[in-house]
Amino acid sequence: MNDAVVSEEQLIQQLQWRYATKQFDAGKKIPAHLWQTLEDSLVLTPSSFGLQPWKFFVITDVPSREKLLQHSWGQRQVVDGSHLVVMAIKKDLGAADVDHYIEYIAEVRGVPVESLAGFSNQIKGFMNGPIDLTAWATRQVYIALGQFMLSAALLGVDTCPMEGFIPGQYDEILGLTPLGYSAVVLCPAGYRAATDKYATLPKVRYPKSDIVQHL
Amino acid sequence: MNDAVVSEEQLIQQLQWRYATKQFDAGKKIPAHLWQTLEDSLVLTPSSFGLQPWKFFVITDVPSREKLLQHSWGQRQVVDGSHLVVMAIKKDLGAADVDHYIEYIAEVRGVPVESLAGFSNQIKGFMNGPIDLTAWATRQVYIALGQFMLSAALLGVDTCPMEGFIPGQYDEILGLTPLGYSAVVLCPAGYRAATDKYATLPKVRYPKSDIVQHL
Repeated sequence: MNDAVVSEEQLIQQLQWRYATKQFDAGKKIPAHLWQTLEDSLVLTPSSFGLQPWKFFVITDVPSREKLLQHSWGQRQVVDGSHLVVMAIKKDLGAADVDHYIEYIAEVRGVPVESLAGFSNQIKGFMNGPIDLTAWATRQVYIALGQFMLSAALLGVDTCPMEGFIPGQYDEILGLTPLGYSAVVLCPAGYRAATDKYATLPKVRYPKSDIVQHL
Repeated sequence: MNDAVVSEEQLIQQLQWRYATKQFDAGKKIPAHLWQTLEDSLVLTPSSFGLQPWKFFVITDVPSREKLLQHSWGQRQVVDGSHLVVMAIKKDLGAADVDHYIEYIAEVRGVPVESLAGFSNQIKGFMNGPIDLTAWATRQVYIALGQFMLSAALLGVDTCPMEGFIPGQYDEILGLTPLGYSAVVLCPAGYRAATDKYATLPKVRYPKSDIVQHL
């Protein structure tokens, strides 16, 4: 059993503190070391089979982000956040991705590729089954989104999860398509503006008795 | 700007510590107060529009969980974890859910329902658009999954995300269907068994240079 690194109160306090930031302070940047840690947290995100069917594109350049604004329903978080993370799925997932992953496991763990044949077949069997791999990969990305927002909040960084954008335009403008990725959700990160009135609105969550049910 | 409640090192340490637990110590239970905090963290999960299209069913009773085992590919985490969380989407999402939500916002924030008409129409417009609401709600649940696994890890609790189960059987056995919910992913929580050899295997994550790309 590992020790807790936060108190129960601190965890809840940070979850209460966070909110979908509407106005970022465009002048306030996430320090470089802290940002590296947030990237490290993204890399450590769990995924089904551990396959990591994703890539996280980071954009800080303002003119590039201004180009995305019109494809983001004009939501300025895209530009005014310190960092914009475009969370993307790997397209056309298939046996080659599994082979690449299995080879990497063998390398990291110092075991023969052959010893992982069962696991490899399990993943490939799953992929050949009745599954929409695009939808499945997208769900995995949402694990990353959930983990990232909490990681940021724990470190005092604001975020805003954003589904309101046009993935096809993002893919084109950012050149994701030739890379084999497609944007599925955005998460600008930075620091809330003092003028963001949403920061102090009472958080709206249904009562626990409506959301958690013991069977 | 809020202060961080964990150090960068602690966050990464806990993400390294966590893993998809294969063997739980069936005798080790999550203390009641700690579990309440984890439930509170679930309630606080962010979702698109804040709509919370979900419910989290918690099962601790062993005989009930034994019944689920055969519909979980025999994965004993379902039974041996201290608590089993069945994460479910609300089915048949529609205008009634939006109205209910809007009324609740009005209540919590002490504003007239009419003042939220624009927001209400925005959500309803989205729902009437070209969107698969079941897939959308399922993605929201994965935000909860990602946040829950990290919340647990921060508090020294092990988890195992599980897609390998038969949702239809879960819905039937647990009686979710008449409640209007459908299971989409599982997350047993508890404490790793000392004998779980997976606990000490090196974690396999692609290099940051493969997973995070600056544009």
